[in-house]
Amino acid sequence: SLTLLTWPSLADVVARWREEGHVAVWLRVPILQSRFAAVAAAQGFAFHHAERDSSTLTLWLGEGPSRLPGYATHQLGVAGAVLDESTGKVLVVQDRNKTINAWKFPGGLSNPGEDIGDTAVREVFEETGIKSEFKSILSIRQQHRHPGAFGKSDMYIICRLEPSSFSIRFCQQECLRCEWMDLQELARTKDATPITSNVAKLLLYGYREGFDKIDLTMREFPAIYTGLFYKLYHRELPESYRNMT
Amino acid sequence: SLTLLTWPSLADVVARWREEGHVAVWLRVPILQSRFAAVAAAQGFAFHHAERDSSTLTLWLGEGPSRLPGYATHQLGVAGAVLDESTGKVLVVQDRNKTINAWKFPGGLSNPGEDIGDTAVREVFEETGIKSEFKSILSIRQQHRHPGAFGKSDMYIICRLEPSSFSIRFCQQECLRCEWMDLQELARTKDATPITSNVAKLLLYGYREGFDKIDLTMREFPAIYTGLFYKLYHRELPESYRNMT
Repeated sequence: SLTLLTWPSLADVVARWREEGHVAVWLRVPILQSRFAAVAAAQGFAFHHAERDSSTLTLWLGEGPSRLPGYATHQLGVAGAVLDESTGKVLVVQDRNKTINAWKFPGGLSNPGEDIGDTAVREVFEETGIKSEFKSILSIRQQHRHPGAFGKSDMYIICRLEPSSFSIRFCQQECLRCEWMDLQELARTKDATPITSNVAKLLLYGYREGFDKIDLTMREFPAIYTGLFYKLYHRELPESYRNMT
Repeated sequence: SLTLLTWPSLADVVARWREEGHVAVWLRVPILQSRFAAVAAAQGFAFHHAERDSSTLTLWLGEGPSRLPGYATHQLGVAGAVLDESTGKVLVVQDRNKTINAWKFPGGLSNPGEDIGDTAVREVFEETGIKSEFKSILSIRQQHRHPGAFGKSDMYIICRLEPSSFSIRFCQQECLRCEWMDLQELARTKDATPITSNVAKLLLYGYREGFDKIDLTMREFPAIYTGLFYKLYHRELPESYRNMT
């Protein structure tokens, strides 16, 4: 048809956009039409990201290097240090299929849209059968080129959790061992990963001298643009500072 | 040629892999061969991720829902609260092109592979011309379905920085205003975003009563599998606990 005959080629369209001073082109391609991604690539487009049934490509037309925002750069792992304050014991696991059998806190990758504390509570329950409640964030680790993160970075957060059940029924697929271990023993043993050993010492310090010494607690705030709420974690702020105006 | 004639179709190969008990197939497709992504999609493959010049597709063949690991879920933004301890003033900016002119700490998205503190120092310099040094992490915010994160989540960290230069030369493209503001005034003003106001109060508490009250400090540890080092942030741990064996 006439429409098809006069439909300009992608090269022509890009040339016109460049003349008109546009700085960037975004192109969304449904997966079943992916041959268009190859056509666009021949014009200089590259993948920005892809998820499920579509890919998004970009072409930078502005001066200098691209100033387009990148895509998500981090996966988030969350572990739970579940401390039974009445006995001074903490919940630890050993992963299956590792070359080194080291004790660590149960945890795993957060699901899309899942809050930090919810990931910790869910992963602890899935791995150990223990129910618990989020109390605070204890530590944050950032690691780049993380194995298994597809070239991306890893953020790993350890939370302090309070148990509400105590009978272990651990996941045999994921864990080799799971037990309630004396916190002081965990802080001292050589059979723990360096980060576990370090956070065990931190937790012991808090257990003995007050959790306010080690906790990042959570407060909720309204987000100004979206109308949603967000969670902010930081050291406890005294009342007198919180209410100052 | 004979090779091409006897080359099995993707459907046949997938059927055989399923029979042989494989639980998943990963497929990497160069962008210029993207028509194969459409062919694979017709067999049930979906995008796992794509970056620059290739896409990666997956097909789950195991029982139940896919247990394949997802791709990066978070972008990371980092801001710097640069406090001049000799004057009690802190560096603040107002963004250009916002509906509300609120004071905030300079900051921006981390580059791939960039450490938290390095992002804060770089962004502060790019936006304000001020040179500074990383001291600690003050707060962490997690926000889902963040505007501008392509449906992904946002992690936003505010760091405490110490200035080593003091003459502002701010980026006119990004900032409307930039100034050294009295920290107490920032903690009290209504013209600041809620998170800025809250972290200003926290910083004022630390400035008056000791930064050890508010800081998450950094320690470096060896990563057991990669041989690289990673940075761990948590509350300062007394020497007696750090060295316990």
